[in-house]
Amino acid sequence: MEDKLIRGKVIADEIIAELREEVSSLKEKSGKVPGLAVVLIGEDPASQVYVNSKEKMANSLGYHSVKIVLPLDSSQEAVLAVVEELNNDPAIHGILVQSPPPPQIDEEQIILNINPQKDVDGFHPSNVGLVFTGAKDGFPPCTPWGCLELLKRSKVETKGKHAVIVGRSNIVGKPMASLMIQKGVDSTVTICHSRTADLGAEIRRADIVIAAVGIPEFITGDMVSEGTVVIDVGINRVDDETRPRGYRLCGDVDFESVAPKASLITPVPGGVGPMTIAMLMSNTLLAFKRIENIG
Amino acid sequence: MEDKLIRGKVIADEIIAELREEVSSLKEKSGKVPGLAVVLIGEDPASQVYVNSKEKMANSLGYHSVKIVLPLDSSQEAVLAVVEELNNDPAIHGILVQSPPPPQIDEEQIILNINPQKDVDGFHPSNVGLVFTGAKDGFPPCTPWGCLELLKRSKVETKGKHAVIVGRSNIVGKPMASLMIQKGVDSTVTICHSRTADLGAEIRRADIVIAAVGIPEFITGDMVSEGTVVIDVGINRVDDETRPRGYRLCGDVDFESVAPKASLITPVPGGVGPMTIAMLMSNTLLAFKRIENIG
Repeated sequence: MEDKLIRGKVIADEIIAELREEVSSLKEKSGKVPGLAVVLIGEDPASQVYVNSKEKMANSLGYHSVKIVLPLDSSQEAVLAVVEELNNDPAIHGILVQSPPPPQIDEEQIILNINPQKDVDGFHPSNVGLVFTGAKDGFPPCTPWGCLELLKRSKVETKGKHAVIVGRSNIVGKPMASLMIQKGVDSTVTICHSRTADLGAEIRRADIVIAAVGIPEFITGDMVSEGTVVIDVGINRVDDETRPRGYRLCGDVDFESVAPKASLITPVPGGVGPMTIAMLMSNTLLAFKRIENIG
Repeated sequence: MEDKLIRGKVIADEIIAELREEVSSLKEKSGKVPGLAVVLIGEDPASQVYVNSKEKMANSLGYHSVKIVLPLDSSQEAVLAVVEELNNDPAIHGILVQSPPPPQIDEEQIILNINPQKDVDGFHPSNVGLVFTGAKDGFPPCTPWGCLELLKRSKVETKGKHAVIVGRSNIVGKPMASLMIQKGVDSTVTICHSRTADLGAEIRRADIVIAAVGIPEFITGDMVSEGTVVIDVGINRVDDETRPRGYRLCGDVDFESVAPKASLITPVPGGVGPMTIAMLMSNTLLAFKRIENIG
């Protein structure tokens, strides 16, 4: 079993070590470092955890890191004003507004107002379009890009392979498809979702399955063929009285029944999860190099 | 056979009649009409034919229609200057630069400089992204949108059906996938391309196949299951000495072997072809209504 695991944590650490080295060498050359600004509206505990870990990681890499916490009742105008300030701040190369914002905030409009060159989350429509058309100057969203990086660094052949993506969210499913069909990756891609007639039949045809539906242990062993590579993007909490916290974390894949059939599989936690933040740091470095025209 | 044909010409004429009526009623209300500008660089005969037919159609619908022909040796700056002028022209709601431009022109940069609100071809990355994410304010590219409209007006069920798209071009294949996975259309979508391992096996699983590879009669009867709906985007010239012109037009689908198995099929010519210009006119009307905030 052990040698089937795609250890996201290990791969993310590798990437982070590479980034640290590159940042340090670019700093020596240019005297400059990448700057990442994270905007948090309100103090939602889960969002705080995410934001703090991004800040901590950016600091540990030697980035200039800015955390801006706005009051929960901030107006749209106030958030837009902060975004505008960050757009114009030459020390900031990456901007992200932690999702979800409170209900009075129009998130789509906020994203539209982030300078696409600093949109390291890759959610601005123009970045979505650039990645989809295979242009080189977009930012792929961090989670699907992390999945692709897991495949690459695990030496999984993607060319001519059938990748089945379960889920069509704008954050994972669609951009994952967008990356998998590009030249160089060259997978045949099927995108499944809640309206798919026979999900098992689709997944059983996959060489690579990427699960991003947000339903705990939704994909079971009977739906997967022998030898499939399984990437599980889901992170779900399910009640578990045997655990001290009263819950356990699990993916969208039923690990117990799927792992025996998979050739490779990401565990949850410790699979895709750690990659998202690594790719955010990677996108921030990329933004820095593009804006400063170095590296 | 006759009742299997999806007659694009007839459907396009229906759409054009609807547009004509709407334009006339909006003109009565507002005193304004949609304005379409088509920019042609050089005098390539095929491009001239396309541009002239767009101009003629726009005129026949009562649009304000502008054709700008620039010299073949125009500089990038000269083309950008024309685009900028059209961006700022309040009588113009839709702008397109006929493809392909001469080699000294960077087409991608030209498209990036068209105001996305006037990008009725739907090729600006921000429109590509808006359509992919399912936002309502993009412009779908005309040909794939025409294919979807053919399916709708032929009462083909798409929800939960398996659509197999053959080809991953930015003009047809990718945006076609983008439209077919959206909520409301709800197809399970497979995107195939030159690297796909067993194309026949993929297509045989399709309820709907959309062929856009640009290879004459590439998809043959043995690759298609009984009852499939077949949309053929290809328009290819093949030598044919029995024809007065010395060639005939054919699609990417081998009509003779596929049609007997298809439940519905688009002929070439007269299938998808006439839809592209109809959807261009439709996008121009849409741009007009958005910019003028009417209708």
